[in-house]
Order: sequence, then C-alpha cells, then structure tokens
Amino acid sequence: MPYVKIELTREGVSREQKQVLIKGVTDLITNTLNKDPHLTHVVIQEIDLDDWGYAGEQTSVLRERGISANKK
Amino acid sequence: MPYVKIELTREGVSREQKQVLIKGVTDLITNTLNKDPHLTHVVIQEIDLDDWGYAGEQTSVLRERGISANKK
Amino acid sequence: MPYVKIELTREGVSREQKQVLIKGVTDLITNTLNKDPHLTHVVIQEIDLDDWGYAGEQTSVLRERGISANKK
Amino acid sequence: MPYVKIELTREGVSREQKQVLIKGVTDLITNTLNKDPHLTHVVIQEIDLDDWGYAGEQTSVLRERGISANKK
Amino acid sequence: MPYVKIELTREGVSREQKQVLIKGVTDLITNTLNKDPHLTHVVIQEIDLDDWGYAGEQTSVLRERGISANKK
Amino acid sequence: MPYVKIELTREGVSREQKQVLIKGVTDLITNTLNKDPHLTHVVIQEIDLDDWGYAGEQTSVLRERGISANKK
Repeated sequence: MPYVKIELTREGVSREQKQVLIKGVTDLITNTLNKDPHLTHVVIQEIDLDDWGYAGEQTSVLRERGISANKK
Repeated sequence: MPYVKIELTREGVSREQKQVLIKGVTDLITNTLNKDPHLTHVVIQEIDLDDWGYAGEQTSVLRERGISANKK
Repeated sequence: MPYVKIELTREGVSREQKQVLIKGVTDLITNTLNKDPHLTHVVIQEIDLDDWGYAGEQTSVLRERGISANKK
Repeated sequence: MPYVKIELTREGVSREQKQVLIKGVTDLITNTLNKDPHLTHVVIQEIDLDDWGYAGEQTSVLRERGISANKK
Repeated sequence: MPYVKIELTREGVSREQKQVLIKGVTDLITNTLNKDPHLTHVVIQEIDLDDWGYAGEQTSVLRERGISANKK
Repeated sequence: MPYVKIELTREGVSREQKQVLIKGVTDLITNTLNKDPHLTHVVIQEIDLDDWGYAGEQTSVLRERGISANKK
C-alpha cells in the first residue's frame, strides 16, 4: 500500500511531465518492493513561488534575483 | 488532539458534501476516542485529475477511458 | 480516489478503536461521495506527547498539569 | 534536513506576512538545532474556508456566525 | 524545489530498497524537470499494518486472511 | 486555524529543543497573523537517517562520509 506525495514549485510543469513522474514513481516502487500497482497512488501538488521558502527566502524572491533551481 | 487531512480528486464535491464529511469525521473521532471536538480539525484538499495517479496513470486519462471511481 | 491521514496524540488508542476509525471514515466517504472503497486508503499516525504542541505548549506538559483533551 | 509545512485558512495572508513566516521559522529552526539554512524548506498552504473544519463545522459557516480565529 | 513523501506499510523494507527508492525518485524528478538534486528531498515513512486501512479494513487483518499487496 | 508540521532528521533533538520550536512557531504565527493560539497546533516528526534522502543519498550514508547538516 504505497502512497506518494510529490510537492513541486509551480513553474510550468506540463501534463506530460506529470504523467512521466506518475508512471516512473509507480514503476520504481512496484518493481523495487514487488507491490501491486492497483494499490499505488501518487499525488502531485504544485506550490506557488510565494509559498515555498528556501534558506529563509521566498522562491519568488530568489527567482527575481536570477537564482534558479535548475541543474548546473 | 486529532488532525485529519482528506485528499480527494476534484470531481464536483459540493459544499454540503464537505460539511457532511467534516461533521461525520469529527463525530466519529470524538465519540470513538472521547475527545473534545474543539481540539479536532479536519482539512479537505481537492486534487486535480491530472495530479492524481493511480496504477501509473493520471486519473484524467482513466476518466477519458470511461473508468470511474464510483461504487459498483 | 480518497486518501485520509488521521494524526492523533499517542495516548492508548487500541487496535479495536483504530479499526472503528478506519471502517467509519471509509464508510462515511464512500457513502457521501459514492466512491469505490477499494480506492480508499486511511492512514493513522500516532504522535508522541512531546511532539504535539497546542497553544505553544507540549501536550506532555499540559497532561502533567492535569489538562486533558477529553470531552467535557 | 528540516522540512516545514504551514497550513492556514485562506483569509487574506499577504506576501509580506508569508515572508515573515518563512524567515522566522527558518531562523528559529536553524538557530535552535544549529542546522544549515540551505537544507531548510518551508511550504505554506492556504486552505479555503469551506475546506477547514473545526469542532465539526466548516470555518466558512463559523465566520458567517461572526466567530473569528483572531486573538482576544 | 521538490519534496517527496513516500508512505509504505511496514513489511520488511530493507535499507538497500530504501536507497533504491531515494536514488530512483531523485533521478526521475531531477531528470524530468531539470532540477538540481541538492534541492530535492525524499522522505520515507513506514506505517504499521494496524494503522493502514484499505477498503475499510486494517491491513493487518487483510494479511491474516492471506490477502497480500504483492504483484500478481 | 493554523496547523504546522515540522519534519526533522532524528539526530538527538531534545525535549527542551522541541519545546523551543513549538513555542517559537506558535508565537511567530499567532503574532504575524493575529491568530488565537488555542487554534494553533504544531506537530514534530522525527525521521530516521535511513529514511531521509538528500540529493539521491540516504542521510545515514552522508553522515558516515562526514557530511553534516550543521551550520557552517
């Protein structure tokens, strides 16, 4: 009985990317733990940039300063 | 001190249904555990169909295929 | 697709009480929203009294002072 | 590695108030536990008044009756 | 800024399986969304079988009846 | 109606530190938002080092390598 919650900053995640995350997390968990996928739920929650704080700053402020969360 | 979070797919839950859930969960918990209702909070969170995955598929895709979550 | 999380202070909740909560919440939600119970998960999480704060105090301290969460 | 979730009723919390909460919680945790702020995330989630139940009633109903959550 | 919570029934998940889940979820999210892994946290929470309800029954009761969550 | 969840790695947080966190978060929120502290709950959840992943690695592995989360 796995349940997974994925929280992300709301920065243009597409419907297709969400499907990739849902399929990928479900496959990973059901394969690693030998679980029935029909007992596996994955919920994605997007969070506005004003509502996610990192190191004491709103992400919206960090983005205004040009600081991204992208891979280097 | 009970706190309850109810996550549901966003599929037309009415204000009245939410009130039934809040009243019912509060009564159930306070009666079963003999708790003061003034210490009992219930939070409902509706999740868009693109954001809830079941068995590796977005619920929005399942609904397009005619697969519902209704009782049989 | 409902998922419910019930957080409670750890104060001697029995296995039977947990079963009453799980059955009761599942029946309430599936009847109110006409949902398939096989898509309904309920998770109970007990929290130690040192870890639950109310009005700025640890519940363990409130209990030592004779303040309970019981119904009046 | 602290992660903090703050759930609030949606009642006009401003961007500035959110920043005060994010900065304050981050400072409190990193100072109390000597943690690196770059490992500290704070997420704020506002909940509609119909979706937050207290003592078995929707907060929206309580507000209509003139019952607020303000300090006395 | 992704944060992921994985809730599982406590049924003998090994340290190595947890590492596979953590590495796999982190890679999936950072590759799909082009996110910095140093901003990605994954938390696993195991839930006792008495505390996870499915279709109105405790998982511990389902297991006693020989009903598993394994893949078919 | 604020509810706050603080998730921390389990690394020797004392009862007194928890009280400082509970009092501090409650004061911060009730002062910033002018909320009644009797409607404010704070829950602390400690997570085992094997169960918290950062940048794709278990925190227990990071600690074995001498990588801490302490302030610099």
